[in-house]
Amino acid sequence: MSEVIAALELGGTKTVVALGNEAGNLLEEFRFPTTTPEETLGIAMDWWRARADIHRLGIASFGPIRIDATREDYGTFLTTPKQAWQGFSLTEFFHRHLCGVKVKIATDVQAALLAEMDRGAALGLQDVLYVTVGTGVGAGICSHGNLIKGTLHPEMGHLMVRRHPDDSFVGACPYHRDCWEGLASGPALEQRWGAPAHELPEHHDAWEMEAYYLAHGLYAACAMLSPERLIMGGGVSQAPGLHAKVASLLDVYSAGYFEALGKRLVAPLLGQQAGIIGALLLGAKS
Amino acid sequence: MSEVIAALELGGTKTVVALGNEAGNLLEEFRFPTTTPEETLGIAMDWWRARADIHRLGIASFGPIRIDATREDYGTFLTTPKQAWQGFSLTEFFHRHLCGVKVKIATDVQAALLAEMDRGAALGLQDVLYVTVGTGVGAGICSHGNLIKGTLHPEMGHLMVRRHPDDSFVGACPYHRDCWEGLASGPALEQRWGAPAHELPEHHDAWEMEAYYLAHGLYAACAMLSPERLIMGGGVSQAPGLHAKVASLLDVYSAGYFEALGKRLVAPLLGQQAGIIGALLLGAKS
Repeated sequence: MSEVIAALELGGTKTVVALGNEAGNLLEEFRFPTTTPEETLGIAMDWWRARADIHRLGIASFGPIRIDATREDYGTFLTTPKQAWQGFSLTEFFHRHLCGVKVKIATDVQAALLAEMDRGAALGLQDVLYVTVGTGVGAGICSHGNLIKGTLHPEMGHLMVRRHPDDSFVGACPYHRDCWEGLASGPALEQRWGAPAHELPEHHDAWEMEAYYLAHGLYAACAMLSPERLIMGGGVSQAPGLHAKVASLLDVYSAGYFEALGKRLVAPLLGQQAGIIGALLLGAKS
Repeated sequence: MSEVIAALELGGTKTVVALGNEAGNLLEEFRFPTTTPEETLGIAMDWWRARADIHRLGIASFGPIRIDATREDYGTFLTTPKQAWQGFSLTEFFHRHLCGVKVKIATDVQAALLAEMDRGAALGLQDVLYVTVGTGVGAGICSHGNLIKGTLHPEMGHLMVRRHPDDSFVGACPYHRDCWEGLASGPALEQRWGAPAHELPEHHDAWEMEAYYLAHGLYAACAMLSPERLIMGGGVSQAPGLHAKVASLLDVYSAGYFEALGKRLVAPLLGQQAGIIGALLLGAKS
């Protein structure tokens, strides 16, 4: 019988726990609200223990968190507005409570990227970028099949993109004001236009400007990393027609130097399931 | 006796050939002008053959050139203003003329990066960016010790950076006008200010603006890749005081979100030798 692998997706508001097999197929899952570390992870452990002996665990987590396994503080949350989680170490917690367990951790968007590469919108590819546009703007990057980790925060949201000439909005980022996230996230859209993204009609000027910013950020990734595929997901990305607008701007910015980049842009295929599947794949490789 | 490795550095105007050992130490080298592919590479082969049997060859080349070894056209020059080299395949040439030779190719700046990581300004590090600022602006990136190759052109020069508010210069890039290279290269400096970089005095306004652009490009790499070290080389980078100006702007752009990034910026240590040493290291690993 194949080993059962545990998976955990820690989100800002909801948590998903699951069990799956080594091939990365989910067997069973359970969703509940994220509260304090002890309570949230206690529920997760009770759920796993009632079903299987856990030897391997993959985690897809909100950040900022140390994801470089060579560092002593691997799996520790850093400065985050979620006070209860700041400084909390996932690896320490699970090593104490699940004796001998092997733990592998990535960010939520990195996990989603791994899942899309395993069975979704980037099947069989090695150089892929996944950007998620919602409450924040974040990215995961695989180069030659390996997640890029760097020292911390290779998440792209705080890139400074060129401002749209008609945009006088000051920006929504508490650190940089008008970085990529500060100009293109859901909260930025809402603050700039006075209505949340899902209430802005398809032909509203908001979407031309949003496409401009998204294309600029994705173009920067192309100039720096030259990925084969660009996956754009997250709530804001689902606005009707937005993908096509961004793709056509990417073609313009390629300017005959790069081959037309627009065709590299796709939507994710796994939807809500990507994070927990990615966590399971991490666990299977731990 | 240790095997002798061949190394070739192909530059736009000059070519360097060398022999070295498996540890990457140069034994002998020879420099001559780059002309046509057949003449240039013929001189290289004659020089090697007169000295040793060649089984492994590392190449640091100008671009654009295919550097993904999994592709059929690995080692082939793409659209380049150097007509005689366009479409020419280095791998095909050497496989035909140096029977059984193993060839490994990287761009000139990637080779310089490998050399600096082996024995220079990034000794022992795994996540490093090397940017060169001269006739063009180019970069090489290592993530977890592996060169990032992507599909093509992960060289950063065509990044679109935010324009300096006082800069009305249209830009020098024939494709994008005011991309990073179009605003910050040596020719851009000369066209904007009416004098070549080495004639612009240290306290000329040119250098504040140049530092602004260089810091923006390097900041983008930090936001996307989070490298441990940023090496800035190339002729323009050697202007007195420029490194310090760029480092201090990097601290400003970190904005308390990233730890102050300025201290990650260093100058290369290997100077002119970096390219050929990197080529030798590539050959030793081929």
